[in-house]
Amino acid sequence: MPELRRDPVIGRWVIISTERGRRPVGFPEPEKKKQTGFCPFCQGNEDKTPPEVFAFRAHGTAPNTPGWTVRVVPNKFPALQIEGGLSRRADGIYDKMNGIGAHEVIIETPDHDRETSQLSDESMRQVLTAFRERILDLKKDVRFRYIIIFKNQGVSAGASLEHSHSQLIATPIIPTRVSQELDGAKRHYDLKERCVFCDIVEQETSDGKRMVIENDGFVAFCPFAARFPFETWLLPRAHVSAFEKITDAEIALLASTLKDTLRRLNIALNSPSYNYILHSAPCKTPDLEFYHWHLEIMPKLTRVAGFEWGTGFYINPTLPEDAAEFLGQIPVERLKEGA
Amino acid sequence: MPELRRDPVIGRWVIISTERGRRPVGFPEPEKKKQTGFCPFCQGNEDKTPPEVFAFRAHGTAPNTPGWTVRVVPNKFPALQIEGGLSRRADGIYDKMNGIGAHEVIIETPDHDRETSQLSDESMRQVLTAFRERILDLKKDVRFRYIIIFKNQGVSAGASLEHSHSQLIATPIIPTRVSQELDGAKRHYDLKERCVFCDIVEQETSDGKRMVIENDGFVAFCPFAARFPFETWLLPRAHVSAFEKITDAEIALLASTLKDTLRRLNIALNSPSYNYILHSAPCKTPDLEFYHWHLEIMPKLTRVAGFEWGTGFYINPTLPEDAAEFLGQIPVERLKEGA
Repeated sequence: MPELRRDPVIGRWVIISTERGRRPVGFPEPEKKKQTGFCPFCQGNEDKTPPEVFAFRAHGTAPNTPGWTVRVVPNKFPALQIEGGLSRRADGIYDKMNGIGAHEVIIETPDHDRETSQLSDESMRQVLTAFRERILDLKKDVRFRYIIIFKNQGVSAGASLEHSHSQLIATPIIPTRVSQELDGAKRHYDLKERCVFCDIVEQETSDGKRMVIENDGFVAFCPFAARFPFETWLLPRAHVSAFEKITDAEIALLASTLKDTLRRLNIALNSPSYNYILHSAPCKTPDLEFYHWHLEIMPKLTRVAGFEWGTGFYINPTLPEDAAEFLGQIPVERLKEGA
Repeated sequence: MPELRRDPVIGRWVIISTERGRRPVGFPEPEKKKQTGFCPFCQGNEDKTPPEVFAFRAHGTAPNTPGWTVRVVPNKFPALQIEGGLSRRADGIYDKMNGIGAHEVIIETPDHDRETSQLSDESMRQVLTAFRERILDLKKDVRFRYIIIFKNQGVSAGASLEHSHSQLIATPIIPTRVSQELDGAKRHYDLKERCVFCDIVEQETSDGKRMVIENDGFVAFCPFAARFPFETWLLPRAHVSAFEKITDAEIALLASTLKDTLRRLNIALNSPSYNYILHSAPCKTPDLEFYHWHLEIMPKLTRVAGFEWGTGFYINPTLPEDAAEFLGQIPVERLKEGA
């Protein structure tokens, strides 16, 4: 019997239908690397991107030259443009405004062939630090109300360049999907006077059946109402609503937890396409009692089709409990391969 | 300058960013037909599907034998199961219930190689009539609160079998995405005492710049805040909230309007993958002053990536006005090819 499960934050229902296939076997082979031509993100091609806005680089090297380890640049084909005012206006019954915002690319390594999960601990710390620093800088621009950081890994996840990178987009309005999450978390808080994410951490820690990794600072688990097979969420144990409050010590632990999680997914699913998305508080309300930053990692093994588009329901053929057990049982030796 | 446009029904913002590519050129080639083995939807294989629940078939032919022109069968691998009760229950802080529902397949033609847009007028009428009849029948089951009909055409749109078919899923709850649309339409009605979709038809008809097809009964246009390049909506001019109220005469006109629209999309975009989704009123509230049934057709030329997942925003590189002009200018002679 398929089971309907409800996400406790936004109320989204998911159909867990294991008759449609339970194990990672049967999923498509990973897409082969196929980008062979020029890569604007490789070392030596710094002049092929807009000038960098942030970088970790060797002492004495000049901006926009080789010598960097992590480099942040504006997107050359931005979805939103940095200059101008919002200029909200009507068009008959419709509403529109200028597409103001920031769109940046975090180039995670100078090495074209190194995926995120293969970064050194130090590189991964630098990537996460770059996230924090760019958020702190962009928050000074009063036009921006939300900053989202995400990664598209692999063609099925929407990546157009294979060189490891994440992206940041700052938007002049709070996106619908974010408002839904904030509203859901607020409803829970109004009812219980507790953060719903803290409640989730508590339940996942105590019953453990969906837990993948636990340490002093973070938990990684497959959520109860996972939309996708092997979907995994990473949360700090401590209640903090804005990612950018993270300390250097916390970044170090997050870096190793994230690498460990990504490696498990790569081993279990043969390096799948995936997206991860940082969910954090809006720019102007960094301290919310009812919200809790987290990272959602979504392997893209299944395709979203008409039913999902029409209903907002998802059909997930893999029990989150099975996925978590599979990920949790991967031997430590295997996690060190390719490190 | 990219433009942010707001959908007037659910309030979703879309980024129209034409710098990211304006014309259909540059979009990927259509996926080649590649299914060569056994097809359970072909004539002669009627015993390979669950027994039919509805069919148009030649006089004197028996159910589940050849002689049909349109055939509706339960899905062999249903996302939801027809037997049982809902049995809502808690799992700690979480909520779940049994996956009760109906999942049917509308096989649109016995001919394996005929796409929906190539159906005869009579076949297309039968398909739409089958939609109506199945909805009317399933509405008798008091457990169901919503019935969605959709089509996945092509691998990128999530189709697993290439033989032309649509699907129907009846759900025991009103899906989130549907509630959002109902709530948005209700808000507009509460404010204006008018149906928002009637307002949309009025504005699209009067300024015409996004119109693709207009006739006495229906309009097809690219919506103001289209999520996807060449997204096209088809609405009845008359205010009716539930599709199943459609008359035979209206079905005949809808059939030719839908065929015309799909042919234009196929010619413009070289037979793209697409989804269409019938948006109609919930089972128990078929007569709503504030809601208006319609069909949303979404070609799948772009991939949904982390930004869309995280925000609910979409980035559309094609102006709806450009798409509508392109579709509208296709000469009538070309629409008759392959008919």
